Amino acid sequence: MIPAVRRARSRQIITLTTDFGDRDWFVASMKGVIHSIAPGCEIVDVSHQIAPGDVRAASFILAAAAPCFPQGTIHVGVVDPGVGSARQAIAIETGRGIYVGPNNGIFTHVMAAEGLEQAVRLDRPKYFRRPVSSTFHGRDVFAPLAAQLAHGVPLGRLGSVEGEILFLDQTTPIRADSGWRCRILYVDRFGNAITEISRGWLGSHRMRASDLEVRVGRRVVRGLARSYAEGSASELFAIFNSLDLLELSVRGGNAARRFGLRVGQEVLVRPRRGGAA
Amino acid sequence: MIPAVRRARSRQIITLTTDFGDRDWFVASMKGVIHSIAPGCEIVDVSHQIAPGDVRAASFILAAAAPCFPQGTIHVGVVDPGVGSARQAIAIETGRGIYVGPNNGIFTHVMAAEGLEQAVRLDRPKYFRRPVSSTFHGRDVFAPLAAQLAHGVPLGRLGSVEGEILFLDQTTPIRADSGWRCRILYVDRFGNAITEISRGWLGSHRMRASDLEVRVGRRVVRGLARSYAEGSASELFAIFNSLDLLELSVRGGNAARRFGLRVGQEVLVRPRRGGAA
Amino acid sequence: MIPAVRRARSRQIITLTTDFGDRDWFVASMKGVIHSIAPGCEIVDVSHQIAPGDVRAASFILAAAAPCFPQGTIHVGVVDPGVGSARQAIAIETGRGIYVGPNNGIFTHVMAAEGLEQAVRLDRPKYFRRPVSSTFHGRDVFAPLAAQLAHGVPLGRLGSVEGEILFLDQTTPIRADSGWRCRILYVDRFGNAITEISRGWLGSHRMRASDLEVRVGRRVVRGLARSYAEGSASELFAIFNSLDLLELSVRGGNAARRFGLRVGQEVLVRPRRGGAA
Repeated sequence: MIPAVRRARSRQIITLTTDFGDRDWFVASMKGVIHSIAPGCEIVDVSHQIAPGDVRAASFILAAAAPCFPQGTIHVGVVDPGVGSARQAIAIETGRGIYVGPNNGIFTHVMAAEGLEQAVRLDRPKYFRRPVSSTFHGRDVFAPLAAQLAHGVPLGRLGSVEGEILFLDQTTPIRADSGWRCRILYVDRFGNAITEISRGWLGSHRMRASDLEVRVGRRVVRGLARSYAEGSASELFAIFNSLDLLELSVRGGNAARRFGLRVGQEVLVRPRRGGAA
Repeated sequence: MIPAVRRARSRQIITLTTDFGDRDWFVASMKGVIHSIAPGCEIVDVSHQIAPGDVRAASFILAAAAPCFPQGTIHVGVVDPGVGSARQAIAIETGRGIYVGPNNGIFTHVMAAEGLEQAVRLDRPKYFRRPVSSTFHGRDVFAPLAAQLAHGVPLGRLGSVEGEILFLDQTTPIRADSGWRCRILYVDRFGNAITEISRGWLGSHRMRASDLEVRVGRRVVRGLARSYAEGSASELFAIFNSLDLLELSVRGGNAARRFGLRVGQEVLVRPRRGGAA
Repeated sequence: MIPAVRRARSRQIITLTTDFGDRDWFVASMKGVIHSIAPGCEIVDVSHQIAPGDVRAASFILAAAAPCFPQGTIHVGVVDPGVGSARQAIAIETGRGIYVGPNNGIFTHVMAAEGLEQAVRLDRPKYFRRPVSSTFHGRDVFAPLAAQLAHGVPLGRLGSVEGEILFLDQTTPIRADSGWRCRILYVDRFGNAITEISRGWLGSHRMRASDLEVRVGRRVVRGLARSYAEGSASELFAIFNSLDLLELSVRGGNAARRFGLRVGQEVLVRPRRGGAA
């Protein structure tokens, strides 16, 4: 029934992560510019629903999605409250792909995960769209530059070496009482509250996942569920999510809304009393 | 003015229907995985705005969209509250396409419309993404399997024959008083309330559309509008919609909100007194 | 690190602008129809989040996005409260592309910007999807016609010459007191309130942007910011946006929400007292 397979040639992928929403013309304008310069490339939306100006959320989301894309993918990130000011435009090459956007920390999580091979300040107006507005560099600077890359222009030709890359402050768990204090990094659409505790961190601090006790506000969560279906539908439970980060959840409900969890909130993690082997 | 036509080769289409929303990285992760395995295939979003866990709405929406796609399209449906539990992953081949997702009833409406030629339990981890998380099979199981199919792997190679396919309960109109009791199946973004009464069902029960009387709550609707523009802007009216299902609407407004209609609500349909010829 | 560039052939682009939202099957149905008729073409979403029936917003958004797309792009606009009534379907060729949709004014802004070379009434049912519903011409009329165009059918073959094109009323600034009265045309997702005052209009009325005084409600804004970053975070400021239209904004906030601005609201623009050179 299924027709003979049609194998198409692979196409250069460009992803977009912005706070432009999906109601106005902003995202389509970027796509039109890209298709005009690099016809035949494949554009994939990561998210356009970042809260306006939330560079931190954009950085987290982009780093969560990027590892799933083919080697050499070009990722454009535009959450850019400083558009039109002195902030620079940059492109960063990691071991996995190229990232194009404002030099405002939006690639912090990606660089932490993938390393940094090369950074270029995108300061050559001949590669921009003319005229360059002072309010929409997504269309006038970042889209054309990403498309030039997709079209084969080498990264190094698009600008000069950038020495000062801006990073967001990243919190790490800190020793406290009998455990570690960490934070909620992100709350997803299902209401799962994601912390900065990774499976690897836990291992390197000689804690066993199954022995964890997690405190958030006045609630205490003991042990770990192995799947959402196994967790409680009435009480908060902890689980390692698909990014291998410790997450607080409730089955069939929105944990953040039900238990009042929010980004930045403090979470205390420690081995259960008498727990560890 | 329009340049000479550029005819491109057709590409294998994969559609996605999920409850992942459009704010996080979930959908993009699936797309990255698909493009990594089957470069050159075409991914089309059906919906990612299914209410979390609403398998029934996903089944309805997917069956509404699927007939418009080319023969041989691969449809991925991931509304999967049982992810990581014992529920199986399946692929279903109908006379029209292949459907990949959890065996939780999400393909109920599609199988009712298109029949079933083959069902395969997707139990061969060699085709999964490694490691398989317990919380995101959209990325780790369903996307890679759909991509394998798009890349030419025959369905039968992805698993063993599945004998127990889970179906959602589907209500059908039941005889009552002088008519038939049915339900509101779906409310669309415009507030149109769609019932399970199809044009075909009406014919096979020897009722003429123009003679219908529809009762919902304390409201009575008589006759049928032929277009939204013809219907009332102040009172509820009935119309056969583009799926050939009887729908309750109000011109220029949101009928569900204005008249308090909701999914599952009972609707009574009967020939108008003295109506039928 | 980046693999050798893969240059793909360009593909015919079709854009979609509708009020169908992203939850139901409407948009996917159109895409399925297009891919069935014109496999290999590229579909780009402009917006599906137009408020139901808001033809004016659709016209504005489409005209804002269209200039970024390659010459010869086919744009489909479906905000169509008159679907199934006597309103005609049209296709309009401008100097830049082809626009397909209902003849209800949805291409007003595009024609104002790009001119009109040819208009065709799409009245040949052999090019429609069968059967044609009375409620979903996006799927049954506009998508198939756009796909025929993409597939190489000449515009003139799809219908007869249309002589009566419907335009929306467009306001222009009118002389008042010591200045000009104009309106807010659009409020974007960031809460920026866009007026009908363009940079060009200002020049042709011998006003200097830097000398402007803008009154909206009881607020008075003097001068112009050159970027969002330069504007005030507590008071309304004025700026020329990326469409070269005068816009009211507040840094890091939602100006429309904070200052109660809305589409259609009156704005008074005049040279600052003693301002103009």
